[in-house]
Amino acid sequence: MHAYRSQTCAELNKAHVGETVRLSGWVHRIRDHGGVLFIDLRDHFGVTQVLCDPDSPVFNEVEKVRSEWCIRIDGTVKARDASLINPKLPTGEIEVFIRDMEVLGAADELPLMVFGDQEYPEETRLRYRYLDLRREAMQRNMSLRSDVVSSIRRRMWDKGFREYQTPIITASSPEGARDFLVPSRLHPGKFYALPQAPQQFKQLIMVSGFDKYFQIAPCFRDEDPRADRSPTDFYQLDMEMSFVEQQDIFDTIQPVIEGVFEEFGGGKVVDKHWPQISYADAALHYGTDKPDLRNPIKMQDVSEHFRGSGFAIFAKLLEQDGTQVRAIPAPTGGSRKFCDRMNVFAQKEGLPGMGYIFWRDGENGMEAAGPLAKNIGPERTEAIRQQLGLGKGDAAFFLGGKPAAFERVAGKARNVIGEELGLTDQNRFAFAWIVDFPMYEADEETGKIDFSHNPFSMPQGGLDALNGDPLSVNGFQYDLACNGYELVSGAIRNHKPEIMFKAFELAGYGEDEVRKRFGGMVNAFKFGAPPHGGCAAGIDRIVMLLAGTSNIREVIMFPMNQRAEDLMMNAPSDPTSDQLMELRLRVIPEDN
Amino acid sequence: MHAYRSQTCAELNKAHVGETVRLSGWVHRIRDHGGVLFIDLRDHFGVTQVLCDPDSPVFNEVEKVRSEWCIRIDGTVKARDASLINPKLPTGEIEVFIRDMEVLGAADELPLMVFGDQEYPEETRLRYRYLDLRREAMQRNMSLRSDVVSSIRRRMWDKGFREYQTPIITASSPEGARDFLVPSRLHPGKFYALPQAPQQFKQLIMVSGFDKYFQIAPCFRDEDPRADRSPTDFYQLDMEMSFVEQQDIFDTIQPVIEGVFEEFGGGKVVDKHWPQISYADAALHYGTDKPDLRNPIKMQDVSEHFRGSGFAIFAKLLEQDGTQVRAIPAPTGGSRKFCDRMNVFAQKEGLPGMGYIFWRDGENGMEAAGPLAKNIGPERTEAIRQQLGLGKGDAAFFLGGKPAAFERVAGKARNVIGEELGLTDQNRFAFAWIVDFPMYEADEETGKIDFSHNPFSMPQGGLDALNGDPLSVNGFQYDLACNGYELVSGAIRNHKPEIMFKAFELAGYGEDEVRKRFGGMVNAFKFGAPPHGGCAAGIDRIVMLLAGTSNIREVIMFPMNQRAEDLMMNAPSDPTSDQLMELRLRVIPEDN
Repeated sequence: MHAYRSQTCAELNKAHVGETVRLSGWVHRIRDHGGVLFIDLRDHFGVTQVLCDPDSPVFNEVEKVRSEWCIRIDGTVKARDASLINPKLPTGEIEVFIRDMEVLGAADELPLMVFGDQEYPEETRLRYRYLDLRREAMQRNMSLRSDVVSSIRRRMWDKGFREYQTPIITASSPEGARDFLVPSRLHPGKFYALPQAPQQFKQLIMVSGFDKYFQIAPCFRDEDPRADRSPTDFYQLDMEMSFVEQQDIFDTIQPVIEGVFEEFGGGKVVDKHWPQISYADAALHYGTDKPDLRNPIKMQDVSEHFRGSGFAIFAKLLEQDGTQVRAIPAPTGGSRKFCDRMNVFAQKEGLPGMGYIFWRDGENGMEAAGPLAKNIGPERTEAIRQQLGLGKGDAAFFLGGKPAAFERVAGKARNVIGEELGLTDQNRFAFAWIVDFPMYEADEETGKIDFSHNPFSMPQGGLDALNGDPLSVNGFQYDLACNGYELVSGAIRNHKPEIMFKAFELAGYGEDEVRKRFGGMVNAFKFGAPPHGGCAAGIDRIVMLLAGTSNIREVIMFPMNQRAEDLMMNAPSDPTSDQLMELRLRVIPEDN
Repeated sequence: MHAYRSQTCAELNKAHVGETVRLSGWVHRIRDHGGVLFIDLRDHFGVTQVLCDPDSPVFNEVEKVRSEWCIRIDGTVKARDASLINPKLPTGEIEVFIRDMEVLGAADELPLMVFGDQEYPEETRLRYRYLDLRREAMQRNMSLRSDVVSSIRRRMWDKGFREYQTPIITASSPEGARDFLVPSRLHPGKFYALPQAPQQFKQLIMVSGFDKYFQIAPCFRDEDPRADRSPTDFYQLDMEMSFVEQQDIFDTIQPVIEGVFEEFGGGKVVDKHWPQISYADAALHYGTDKPDLRNPIKMQDVSEHFRGSGFAIFAKLLEQDGTQVRAIPAPTGGSRKFCDRMNVFAQKEGLPGMGYIFWRDGENGMEAAGPLAKNIGPERTEAIRQQLGLGKGDAAFFLGGKPAAFERVAGKARNVIGEELGLTDQNRFAFAWIVDFPMYEADEETGKIDFSHNPFSMPQGGLDALNGDPLSVNGFQYDLACNGYELVSGAIRNHKPEIMFKAFELAGYGEDEVRKRFGGMVNAFKFGAPPHGGCAAGIDRIVMLLAGTSNIREVIMFPMNQRAEDLMMNAPSDPTSDQLMELRLRVIPEDN
């Protein structure tokens, strides 16, 4: 017989009754029923009930075992009495009478119970991650992650992509976030960097003629931690194709993502139609470039109704350049209580408040209520109602000023309204491509032009467009939003050196600077670069959505805590002086 | 029509004759046949002949294109004349008459030709890797690598393994090689480390109850570069299982490796029988723990034949403790010329020389020749011949002293003899498990006991064995050798804290030290650790063997050079002073 098991803890059933078997696993739960010890023995695959009474030669030893001890038992399979059959358990028809036992690994008193649903502080869970991971929900999340990654790989292969690995210890690539640096021992004083993404390498793979590349790629960003972001390393589905336009990328990646969500979405509706929304429209209608389209609310510009109206605050505001008044329609939100609550929400978010109108039953049929309606009078109020398509029982909220100043809060308010009124369909994955990102933005104070997003994207209109007003140039750049998260980001790349130099020049970077920072890629483009483009999708975030959690650490095996520490492994830690010496580094004391 | 192509450069055939098509690719080769320009247009998928004469509206532009320009052409598919059909090319029946052309990416003068077989210095190839990678052999190697990794993944899944990703920015794990360190910005003065292997994490995954883990895992070792080793990061197939013994690991991994070699071995014989050879026997018979079993030569201990013999050098030597004389039999090597050449080889390797005997036709039938034979006389010579099973036309070489001093050269001589005599079967993959590695070794000068290999392996005999002579304890540790390379390394782990502390104590590490260095794992073992074991296989090395190269850089997309530099991307490089400031680091000047 095998040293540890003849079956797993999920395999025994009525057919095995009478057999002598060997099982190994963890003591999930122990119950003492009048001198008979029942143990739920658990392994990765399932649970089997094993039991023991004083007739067993090892009763005394079995009495000593505690929760989460790892044990091996030999025993005889017995059918359970009909009344004791557990139909929920694959092994629920049988139990195993213990005749021999070996303690494979004893356990100290547990800082975290595996059995049951008790909640623990995240720090405890991370410090004892190996216990936390034994819990059913975590086993399920990790299996889900593994299955999702495997499914993505299969789908990419099916589309003719091959996976190629790119270097991890490589050159600094100042792309937005901070690089993690790695000091070189062979070249002291010099540093490698960990890639924020394999962006340059995947473009070089296209220049190398490989046509279609993907990778489940480790990425590294020294960013301040956030709930939906890993503070150190994370994985993305990174892909790139040659000889393509933007729509080709969409047509390639949509079936992959859609397929994964269909496969692992637990029956939730997966939208088939993925609208393409311009960056500008996304800001206008949703207050964000990652709109949650499960929420039907679409904000609208209602400035005209307030211009010169009796509501002085908005009327005055609209006299300034670049201002606007937007409405957030709130169907079924037509009560003073709800409107007041939303007003308080806006104040908490740092705005003076949110004006509102709501429509209710009045003496003469429907009437508009709220201070705003009184100020602007019935005609304007009615015009607003008609523009927004609202009716009795509905409400609308209003925000005014420069859009940049209120858009973020407006977007948040839209989310809260959608959720509080039950308008947001929780049972659905809703996707939207956000397109036409502006290439440049001007600093509000200095007026200096800089890239607003990815400097490597091809400007729409090419070199000609760059010779006009930079602020009106959009890039062939796109994001995919899903349920309010940015899931994918990508671009058609700028593969022409002359357009690239011009694009950087507009943002104030000279040719020398570009060569210095992106020399590897720019040099390559001089030797027959193909047009190419691609995108990257956050693996952790996809799994997070599919697992129905908003905490990325629930879907990572061994995550850092929110201070970028691993308390279990003790990282980061003090280097030895030998290590620093070899690297020719000195740590500057804190008070210097 | 699509902006860049209606077909790839491998798709057109007779069925397309008369159609207007669009192709994109690189100008592989241009020939001018009396005013008609023939271009081999190449993409990742194949080559199509396109042509142009002065009748084409774009003849003038086509005249300007040069090798490796990336172009898009529109044209008409024409059948080739019967005499011009190229049956070796899938597109060999047709050609495309160019009617329109667009230069997608022009190319400067090439530092490296893609077409043809010209060889270039490795530095040139790495600096212009994107051109080097366009060459057919490199396209093939990269596709092979991608296919091999995919096949390994599928085979592991089929065996019930799931892939789980482990952290890359993590804790220092002093395991043998040097760690790469990563300074922390959020915790200045502290450092993360990149994992030399996910050893501790995969063991923690077992303690977490996952049963079967694998990962195509990035590994990082700050080692001095070598031909068959990447100086920075590399990938391994890393796997671990719970509730297993050594033979279970062998039974699991052999079909995976064997299957991959069958699938991609290009028809070479893949051995089905993988002998298990003890570490001691491997040293004795092959002079190495990674024997090349394609070579049938097996060295033997022939000390007894030389003890007290007339060959004073060996006779004297054997009076010292721990000395031995070993023979390398060399079937068909029986000529003075060959024997002298091997003697010179040994001298070049730093030994005084290699004695030999060879057997040839003499006046009275077979006679033994060479100075050694004369010195020890005919009986001893004949006894040696019989022990080695040699005959007329064969030779034997002899090395004496302490095995540690000559084993390495003996192993090398065995390789050279096997190859020079054509005994080594080049058409075969031969595998052997090397088992029973000693846990400890004593420093020759100080006598201090230290781990000789992996300190985390379970000692054979457990705690009892550790209470005896440490130098006689073997570990449940194993390597897989293939054709002279170490392909796999693994162990059954020491999962019991009390045995682990004892094992480390013998090597001079106190409990505090162990807790400090391996605290994450040791703590976990206190909470019900299952018996577990696993192994890791070098991906780069497997692909290298399958590609038939001995240079690992041939199977890595963007490798470092042998000084651990990336000349294409300029890594490592000087950090900015801001970066150093944020990390609170100072580089110590060289002359300090």
